[in-house]
Amino acid sequence: MNTHVYAADIANFEKQYRTNLINGLAGIKSAILVGTQGKDGQTNLAIFSQVVHVGANPPLMGILHRPVSVEKHTYENIITNEYFTLNHVPIEKYKDAHQTSARYQRSQSEFEHCGFSEEFTPHIQAPYVKESKLKIGLKLAEIIPITSNDTLLIIGSVEEIIAAEGIIEAEGFLNLNNSKTALVHGLETYYQAEKVSRLPYAKPIK
Amino acid sequence: MNTHVYAADIANFEKQYRTNLINGLAGIKSAILVGTQGKDGQTNLAIFSQVVHVGANPPLMGILHRPVSVEKHTYENIITNEYFTLNHVPIEKYKDAHQTSARYQRSQSEFEHCGFSEEFTPHIQAPYVKESKLKIGLKLAEIIPITSNDTLLIIGSVEEIIAAEGIIEAEGFLNLNNSKTALVHGLETYYQAEKVSRLPYAKPIK
Repeated sequence: MNTHVYAADIANFEKQYRTNLINGLAGIKSAILVGTQGKDGQTNLAIFSQVVHVGANPPLMGILHRPVSVEKHTYENIITNEYFTLNHVPIEKYKDAHQTSARYQRSQSEFEHCGFSEEFTPHIQAPYVKESKLKIGLKLAEIIPITSNDTLLIIGSVEEIIAAEGIIEAEGFLNLNNSKTALVHGLETYYQAEKVSRLPYAKPIK
Repeated sequence: MNTHVYAADIANFEKQYRTNLINGLAGIKSAILVGTQGKDGQTNLAIFSQVVHVGANPPLMGILHRPVSVEKHTYENIITNEYFTLNHVPIEKYKDAHQTSARYQRSQSEFEHCGFSEEFTPHIQAPYVKESKLKIGLKLAEIIPITSNDTLLIIGSVEEIIAAEGIIEAEGFLNLNNSKTALVHGLETYYQAEKVSRLPYAKPIK
């Protein structure tokens, strides 16, 4: 027997129930740590799951960022410094990655407080996560406000990719079994991925 | 030994290699079938993986849609009819779901050609996928052009949720083990999810 839930029901749900339900509808996604730093060099690390592929040529990726009505260190660092990194979370570090969602003060770097190591390259003015096997360095390209609810889509151009051995395979495919990328559903439930199959480009069947 | 890839390398890669590489960077996501219909009642079904949670109150979700320089039935149906459905793909149907990415004519419904059954409710002017255990009916709220590359973020308000037994649990959490939601990486590699753990809301550790 199916359960039907309507807009009027959703509006009347208790806040936490509604948050859990609506957050979960978009399904499971990869857990990604976003690394940034302020002009003063203060680093920040925050877990995101809403990371999108915007385009391959030019190479663009985006992160969906909640409204910035309260203090948001990631956003502030990106607009002032214009660089950010995306770091796939290795599954064995999922608890530490989740801990970055706690409200630390700006002066407290989540790298130090949550057990991750900073790594820098000459090309990107933001810290990478050393423990991650697949990391992307981006330069801010565009910030798009979503007027419906003041969420922001922050888009960056891919300037650098750092991949551990065994990640980039023939034809440019990425092996995410080897990166052991953690997955997250909603804000709190972690999953790991098991590969089923790679399918060929689909064509209409005659 | 890490591999470093730079923006200049990406620009020089052969097109298919670049597409595979850059598409894969955002990681694994849930495979979602988007159901729409034209004013003439012609139905369409298309697989998407870039589905985002925009907000819980009001309940909003979005799909990232590629530039519409060529004929795009999903987009055309959404702008003319203003409704669409999101249907989690059950893992046993992942090959059929992938097949919806083939270029069928507008007069050929992917429901019929790819082995899915249409299901309608009085509230949503778009077809649901009967075989899906978690489906969401949305009304168009906003279409946001991403000027960097003409991609579109199509946002809808959640008007109806249809969940099979065992999906909506206490506190509004969704059980995606029971929906058996398929995952996809890039445009072609399918995964299934294995639950690791649900973690409590994170607080700074003293």
